[in-house]
Amino acid sequence: MEEPVDSSTEQSINPETLFQLNYGMCILGSAKNDRANACVVNTVFQVVPDPVIIAVSVNKENLTHEYITNSRVLSVSILGEETPMPFIGRFGFRTGRDIDKFKKTNYKPGITGAPIVMDNSAGYIEAEVIKEINVKTHTLFIGRVLACQTIDENRIPMTYAYYR
Amino acid sequence: MEEPVDSSTEQSINPETLFQLNYGMCILGSAKNDRANACVVNTVFQVVPDPVIIAVSVNKENLTHEYITNSRVLSVSILGEETPMPFIGRFGFRTGRDIDKFKKTNYKPGITGAPIVMDNSAGYIEAEVIKEINVKTHTLFIGRVLACQTIDENRIPMTYAYYR
Repeated sequence: MEEPVDSSTEQSINPETLFQLNYGMCILGSAKNDRANACVVNTVFQVVPDPVIIAVSVNKENLTHEYITNSRVLSVSILGEETPMPFIGRFGFRTGRDIDKFKKTNYKPGITGAPIVMDNSAGYIEAEVIKEINVKTHTLFIGRVLACQTIDENRIPMTYAYYR
Repeated sequence: MEEPVDSSTEQSINPETLFQLNYGMCILGSAKNDRANACVVNTVFQVVPDPVIIAVSVNKENLTHEYITNSRVLSVSILGEETPMPFIGRFGFRTGRDIDKFKKTNYKPGITGAPIVMDNSAGYIEAEVIKEINVKTHTLFIGRVLACQTIDENRIPMTYAYYR
């Protein structure tokens, strides 16, 4: 056993190191009164294998957050590496309060009613929210998976490292 | 908008699709009374960027789960792609109730006291638990990051897809 790691510096958190964690790029969707909305997230992961339960973290200011809180359902569309940057920009850098993000997007409502993005997706997951955890600026939604299917097995899922 | 996705089959959950989510392979550690233990997880992710907060899901039957619940601290060592399979086996397929997993492992206690694995790691994260969420067979630990550093920037983090 070696000496404890030095903790005397103020730079104890190196943001670059956090990028060493692997994240997948996904579109997180929900619906409210027949209107769909979605945003880009890289924070979806499986919590329990059986029954399949996932978690996803969303900023409270996002319109999609409001939709999920209301409808208690969510969809995750897993983006492929070939996804064009303007497509990610449509979902990631604009708010659904200003534009209808699904106007020019090929999608299907899933069994939960949440939108499944068919363009550029490798697969999708649908879940119903069973718990929501308040964590500072974000809510961690815990969802029981109701459906999960591959859309195009030839699409290699995009990691956040690849996206960067 | 197309017709809703067919939900009439019992095979609505395709386990292969869940592997499209990208996960990083990590060693999750904790300490109790000067003894360190750890297990392999692929369920670490960032929940909030500022302050940096992470979440990790752990099976309740793991000894590491007991250590984290007791000490309220945890370490995450992010494994590189070159990690030999027997090394992963030592931490992943055996229980700390039977063997001392750190006996032949090069490690350092971090500022939290949790063990940082130096062999094969690209980087590490240390956190103190601020919430624990009961989710069926697992506990989702929410941790505030206290330290986070790169160990070897030349090590490419191993994804679960790569490991498979």
